Amino acid sequence: MEKKSPIRRFADFRWEGVDLLAYKDEGSAPFKAITRQTLFRDPALKGELRYFEMAPGGYSTLERHEHVHAVLILRGEGECLIGGEVYKIAANDLVTVAPLTWHQFRANAGRPLGFLCMVNAERDKPSQPSVQERSAMEANPRVARFLSGEPSA
Amino acid sequence: MEKKSPIRRFADFRWEGVDLLAYKDEGSAPFKAITRQTLFRDPALKGELRYFEMAPGGYSTLERHEHVHAVLILRGEGECLIGGEVYKIAANDLVTVAPLTWHQFRANAGRPLGFLCMVNAERDKPSQPSVQERSAMEANPRVARFLSGEPSA
Repeated sequence: MEKKSPIRRFADFRWEGVDLLAYKDEGSAPFKAITRQTLFRDPALKGELRYFEMAPGGYSTLERHEHVHAVLILRGEGECLIGGEVYKIAANDLVTVAPLTWHQFRANAGRPLGFLCMVNAERDKPSQPSVQERSAMEANPRVARFLSGEPSA
Repeated sequence: MEKKSPIRRFADFRWEGVDLLAYKDEGSAPFKAITRQTLFRDPALKGELRYFEMAPGGYSTLERHEHVHAVLILRGEGECLIGGEVYKIAANDLVTVAPLTWHQFRANAGRPLGFLCMVNAERDKPSQPSVQERSAMEANPRVARFLSGEPSA
Protein backbone atom coordinates (compact mmCIF):
# COMPACT_ATOMS: atom_id res chain seq x y z
CA MET A 1 0.00 0.00 0.00
CA GLU A 2 1.34 3.43 -0.91
CA LYS A 3 2.08 5.57 2.12
CA LYS A 4 -0.43 8.39 2.45
CA SER A 5 1.14 11.86 2.32
CA PRO A 6 0.64 13.92 5.49
CA ILE A 7 0.09 16.98 3.25
CA ARG A 8 -3.07 17.65 1.26
CA ARG A 9 -2.66 20.60 -1.09
CA PHE A 10 -5.15 23.43 -1.45
CA ALA A 11 -6.31 24.88 -4.78
CA ASP A 12 -9.34 27.13 -5.30
CA PHE A 13 -11.12 26.08 -2.07
CA ARG A 14 -10.77 22.38 -2.79
CA TRP A 15 -8.25 20.05 -1.14
CA GLU A 16 -6.47 16.95 -2.49
CA GLY A 17 -8.34 13.78 -1.60
CA VAL A 18 -11.29 15.63 -0.03
CA ASP A 19 -14.70 15.00 -1.61
CA LEU A 20 -17.06 17.86 -2.39
CA LEU A 21 -20.32 16.78 -0.76
CA ALA A 22 -23.91 17.91 -0.63
CA TYR A 23 -24.58 19.99 2.50
CA LYS A 24 -27.39 17.62 3.52
CA ASP A 25 -29.70 15.16 1.82
CA GLU A 26 -31.98 17.07 -0.56
CA GLY A 27 -35.38 17.78 0.90
CA SER A 28 -34.31 17.06 4.50
CA ALA A 29 -34.31 20.76 5.40
CA PRO A 30 -34.30 24.17 3.65
CA PHE A 31 -30.88 25.29 2.37
CA LYS A 32 -29.48 26.73 -0.86
CA ALA A 33 -26.25 26.63 -2.88
CA ILE A 34 -24.05 25.24 -0.12
CA THR A 35 -21.43 22.47 -0.16
CA ARG A 36 -19.51 20.55 2.48
CA GLN A 37 -15.98 19.18 2.65
CA THR A 38 -14.70 17.16 5.61
CA LEU A 39 -11.10 18.26 6.14
CA PHE A 40 -10.30 16.24 9.27
CA ARG A 41 -12.18 13.21 10.60
CA ASP A 42 -10.09 10.58 12.35
CA PRO A 43 -10.91 7.98 15.04
CA ALA A 44 -8.02 9.45 17.08
CA LEU A 45 -9.60 12.95 17.01
CA LYS A 46 -12.51 13.90 19.26
CA GLY A 47 -13.26 16.86 17.00
CA GLU A 48 -13.99 17.14 13.29
CA LEU A 49 -13.09 20.05 11.02
CA ARG A 50 -15.40 20.71 8.08
CA TYR A 51 -15.44 23.43 5.39
CA PHE A 52 -18.79 24.77 4.20
CA GLU A 53 -19.15 27.12 1.25
CA MET A 54 -22.13 29.03 -0.03
CA ALA A 55 -22.33 30.60 -3.49
CA PRO A 56 -23.67 34.18 -3.55
CA GLY A 57 -27.31 33.98 -2.44
CA GLY A 58 -26.79 30.63 -0.69
CA TYR A 59 -27.64 29.83 2.90
CA SER A 60 -27.40 27.09 5.52
CA THR A 61 -30.41 25.63 7.35
CA LEU A 62 -31.90 27.67 10.20
CA GLU A 63 -31.50 25.21 13.08
CA ARG A 64 -30.23 24.54 16.59
CA HIS A 65 -28.74 21.64 18.55
CA GLU A 66 -27.02 20.86 21.83
CA HIS A 67 -23.52 20.69 20.36
CA VAL A 68 -21.32 23.77 19.89
CA HIS A 69 -20.11 25.13 16.55
CA ALA A 70 -16.64 26.71 16.54
CA VAL A 71 -16.45 28.65 13.26
CA LEU A 72 -13.67 30.53 11.46
CA ILE A 73 -14.66 32.36 8.26
CA LEU A 74 -12.16 31.31 5.60
CA ARG A 75 -13.48 33.11 2.52
CA GLY A 76 -15.63 36.04 1.49
CA GLU A 77 -18.27 37.76 3.54
CA GLY A 78 -21.92 37.66 4.49
CA GLU A 79 -24.06 37.56 7.60
CA CYS A 80 -25.11 35.11 10.25
CA LEU A 81 -28.05 34.87 12.60
CA ILE A 82 -26.97 33.76 16.07
CA GLY A 83 -29.72 33.61 18.68
CA GLY A 84 -31.82 36.74 18.30
CA GLU A 85 -29.37 38.92 16.38
CA VAL A 86 -27.76 39.32 12.93
CA TYR A 87 -24.02 39.88 12.53
CA LYS A 88 -21.85 40.80 9.56
CA ILE A 89 -18.97 38.37 9.07
CA ALA A 90 -15.79 38.53 7.03
CA ALA A 91 -12.67 36.45 6.46
CA ASN A 92 -10.97 35.10 9.59
CA ASP A 93 -13.68 36.28 12.02
CA LEU A 94 -14.58 33.74 14.70
CA VAL A 95 -18.18 32.71 15.44
CA THR A 96 -19.26 30.65 18.45
CA VAL A 97 -22.66 28.97 18.28
CA ALA A 98 -23.59 28.07 21.88
CA PRO A 99 -25.80 25.07 22.76
CA LEU A 100 -29.46 25.29 21.65
CA THR A 101 -28.93 28.61 19.82
CA TRP A 102 -30.79 29.22 16.54
CA HIS A 103 -28.29 29.95 13.76
CA GLN A 104 -28.04 30.42 10.03
CA PHE A 105 -25.29 31.61 7.66
CA ARG A 106 -26.06 33.56 4.47
CA ALA A 107 -23.82 34.60 1.55
CA ASN A 108 -25.92 37.74 1.16
CA ALA A 109 -23.15 40.21 0.27
CA GLY A 110 -22.80 39.27 -3.42
CA ARG A 111 -19.77 37.08 -2.73
CA PRO A 112 -19.17 33.45 -1.75
CA LEU A 113 -19.02 32.72 1.97
CA GLY A 114 -16.84 29.86 3.19
CA PHE A 115 -16.13 28.80 6.74
CA LEU A 116 -14.36 26.18 8.82
CA CYS A 117 -16.52 24.56 11.49
CA MET A 118 -15.12 22.47 14.36
CA VAL A 119 -17.59 20.16 16.12
CA ASN A 120 -17.43 17.16 18.42
CA ALA A 121 -17.26 13.92 16.45
CA GLU A 122 -20.10 12.64 18.66
CA ARG A 123 -22.95 15.12 18.51
CA ASP A 124 -26.73 15.41 18.48
CA LYS A 125 -28.96 16.06 15.45
CA PRO A 126 -30.24 19.58 14.68
CA SER A 127 -33.87 20.61 14.95
CA GLN A 128 -35.68 23.34 13.00
CA PRO A 129 -37.94 26.07 14.39
CA SER A 130 -41.70 25.68 14.51
CA VAL A 131 -43.84 28.28 12.70
CA GLN A 132 -44.40 29.99 16.08
CA GLU A 133 -40.67 30.02 16.91
CA ARG A 134 -39.83 31.50 13.52
CA SER A 135 -42.50 34.21 13.92
CA ALA A 136 -41.07 35.10 17.32
CA MET A 137 -37.62 35.55 15.76
CA GLU A 138 -39.08 37.74 12.99
CA ALA A 139 -40.38 40.19 15.60
CA ASN A 140 -36.86 41.66 15.35
CA PRO A 141 -36.90 43.57 12.00
CA ARG A 142 -33.19 42.88 11.44
CA VAL A 143 -33.86 39.16 11.76
CA ALA A 144 -36.94 39.41 9.51
CA ARG A 145 -34.87 41.16 6.83
CA PHE A 146 -32.11 38.53 7.16
CA LEU A 147 -34.52 35.57 6.92
CA SER A 148 -36.29 37.12 3.91
CA GLY A 149 -33.07 36.74 1.94
CA GLU A 150 -32.64 40.45 1.23
CA PRO A 151 -29.02 41.44 0.57
CA SER A 152 -26.93 42.61 3.50
CA ALA A 153 -27.61 46.30 4.24
CA MET B 1 -23.22 40.73 33.26
CA GLU B 2 -22.88 41.91 29.68
CA LYS B 3 -23.76 39.21 27.18
CA LYS B 4 -20.66 37.98 25.35
CA SER B 5 -20.82 38.53 21.59
CA PRO B 6 -20.75 35.30 19.56
CA ILE B 7 -18.47 37.09 17.05
CA ARG B 8 -14.81 37.85 17.62
CA ARG B 9 -13.39 40.08 14.90
CA PHE B 10 -10.12 39.46 13.10
CA ALA B 11 -7.50 42.13 12.40
CA ASP B 12 -3.89 41.50 11.33
CA PHE B 13 -3.76 37.91 12.66
CA ARG B 14 -5.09 38.85 16.08
CA TRP B 15 -8.64 38.24 17.32
CA GLU B 16 -10.81 40.24 19.71
CA GLY B 17 -10.56 38.90 23.26
CA VAL B 18 -7.85 36.35 22.37
CA ASP B 19 -4.54 36.68 24.23
CA LEU B 20 -1.24 36.51 22.39
CA LEU B 21 0.71 33.91 24.36
CA ALA B 22 4.21 32.52 24.48
CA TYR B 23 4.47 29.28 22.50
CA LYS B 24 5.78 27.45 25.59
CA ASP B 25 7.54 28.36 28.81
CA GLU B 26 10.96 29.76 27.95
CA GLY B 27 13.73 27.19 28.32
CA SER B 28 11.36 24.22 28.35
CA ALA B 29 12.32 23.19 24.81
CA PRO B 30 14.05 24.69 21.74
CA PHE B 31 11.86 27.02 19.65
CA LYS B 32 12.19 30.48 18.07
CA ALA B 33 10.00 33.49 17.25
CA ILE B 34 6.67 31.68 17.61
CA THR B 35 3.44 32.74 19.34
CA ARG B 36 0.21 30.97 20.30
CA GLN B 37 -3.42 32.10 20.38
CA THR B 38 -6.20 29.82 21.61
CA LEU B 39 -9.17 30.50 19.34
CA PHE B 40 -11.61 27.92 20.72
CA ARG B 41 -11.43 26.16 24.09
CA ASP B 42 -14.75 25.33 25.74
CA PRO B 43 -15.80 22.63 28.22
CA ALA B 44 -18.53 21.64 25.71
CA LEU B 45 -15.93 21.04 22.95
CA LYS B 46 -13.81 17.87 22.86
CA GLY B 47 -11.37 19.62 20.52
CA GLU B 48 -9.39 22.85 20.78
CA LEU B 49 -8.43 25.15 17.94
CA ARG B 50 -5.21 27.11 18.32
CA TYR B 51 -3.34 29.52 16.01
CA PHE B 52 0.46 29.45 15.95
CA GLU B 53 2.54 31.99 14.10
CA MET B 54 6.24 32.12 13.40
CA ALA B 55 8.11 35.22 12.28
CA PRO B 56 10.52 34.68 9.37
CA GLY B 57 13.29 32.41 10.68
CA GLY B 58 11.09 31.09 13.49
CA TYR B 59 10.38 27.44 14.26
CA SER B 60 8.36 25.19 16.55
CA THR B 61 9.90 22.51 18.77
CA LEU B 62 10.94 19.24 17.12
CA GLU B 63 8.82 16.77 19.08
CA ARG B 64 6.31 13.93 19.00
CA HIS B 65 3.35 12.72 21.07
CA GLU B 66 0.50 10.25 20.98
CA HIS B 67 -2.17 12.85 20.07
CA VAL B 68 -2.89 13.88 16.48
CA HIS B 69 -2.38 17.39 15.07
CA ALA B 70 -4.89 18.51 12.42
CA VAL B 71 -3.29 21.58 10.80
CA LEU B 72 -4.49 24.13 8.24
CA ILE B 73 -1.95 26.72 7.12
CA LEU B 74 -3.61 30.13 7.48
CA ARG B 75 -0.83 32.50 6.49
CA GLY B 76 2.41 32.62 4.53
CA GLU B 77 4.63 29.72 3.63
CA GLY B 78 7.49 27.59 4.88
CA GLU B 79 8.30 23.95 5.42
CA CYS B 80 7.52 21.21 7.88
CA LEU B 81 9.22 18.01 8.88
CA ILE B 82 6.74 15.15 9.29
CA GLY B 83 8.23 11.77 10.12
CA GLY B 84 11.29 11.28 7.94
CA GLU B 85 10.50 13.83 5.22
CA VAL B 86 10.38 17.60 4.59
CA TYR B 87 7.41 19.24 2.83
CA LYS B 88 6.81 22.73 1.48
CA ILE B 89 3.62 24.26 2.86
CA ALA B 90 1.54 27.26 1.80
CA ALA B 91 -1.72 28.95 2.77
CA ASN B 92 -4.71 26.61 3.21
CA ASP B 93 -2.73 23.38 2.81
CA LEU B 94 -3.69 20.64 5.29
CA VAL B 95 -1.13 18.78 7.39
CA THR B 96 -1.89 15.64 9.44
CA VAL B 97 0.59 14.72 12.16
CA ALA B 98 -0.09 11.07 13.04
CA PRO B 99 0.54 9.61 16.53
CA LEU B 100 4.20 9.41 17.63
CA THR B 101 5.46 11.17 14.48
CA TRP B 102 8.38 13.59 14.80
CA HIS B 103 7.37 17.02 13.49
CA GLN B 104 8.55 20.60 13.27
CA PHE B 105 7.34 23.72 11.42
CA ARG B 106 9.74 26.37 10.10
CA ALA B 107 9.10 29.82 8.61
CA ASN B 108 12.14 29.35 6.39
CA ALA B 109 10.85 31.04 3.22
CA GLY B 110 11.44 34.66 4.28
CA ARG B 111 7.80 35.13 5.27
CA PRO B 112 5.72 34.56 8.41
CA LEU B 113 4.10 31.14 8.74
CA GLY B 114 0.80 30.86 10.61
CA PHE B 115 -1.36 27.79 11.08
CA LEU B 116 -4.49 26.55 12.78
CA CYS B 117 -4.04 23.38 14.80
CA MET B 118 -6.94 21.25 16.07
CA VAL B 119 -6.14 18.85 18.93
CA ASN B 120 -8.08 16.86 21.50
CA ALA B 121 -8.68 18.90 24.65
CA GLU B 122 -7.37 15.90 26.62
CA ARG B 123 -3.97 14.97 25.27
CA ASP B 124 -0.52 13.72 26.25
CA LYS B 125 2.67 15.78 26.62
CA PRO B 126 5.25 15.92 23.80
CA SER B 127 8.71 14.40 24.02
CA GLN B 128 11.89 15.49 22.24
CA PRO B 129 14.31 13.30 20.31
CA SER B 130 17.45 11.93 21.92
CA VAL B 131 20.82 12.80 20.32
CA GLN B 132 20.75 9.38 18.65
CA GLU B 133 17.24 9.84 17.31
CA ARG B 134 18.13 13.26 15.90
CA SER B 135 21.25 11.86 14.21
CA ALA B 136 19.17 9.11 12.62
CA MET B 137 16.80 11.75 11.18
CA GLU B 138 19.76 13.75 9.83
CA ALA B 139 20.87 10.77 7.75
CA ASN B 140 18.36 12.13 5.22
CA PRO B 141 20.16 15.18 3.71
CA ARG B 142 16.85 17.00 3.17
CA VAL B 143 16.07 16.63 6.86
CA ALA B 144 19.62 17.68 7.83
CA ARG B 145 19.28 20.84 5.70
CA PHE B 146 15.84 21.59 7.24
CA LEU B 147 17.05 21.10 10.84
CA SER B 148 20.14 23.26 10.20
CA GLY B 149 17.82 26.23 9.66
CA GLU B 150 18.93 26.88 6.08
CA PRO B 151 16.32 28.69 3.99
CA SER B 152 13.91 26.62 1.96
CA ALA B 153 15.54 25.54 -1.34
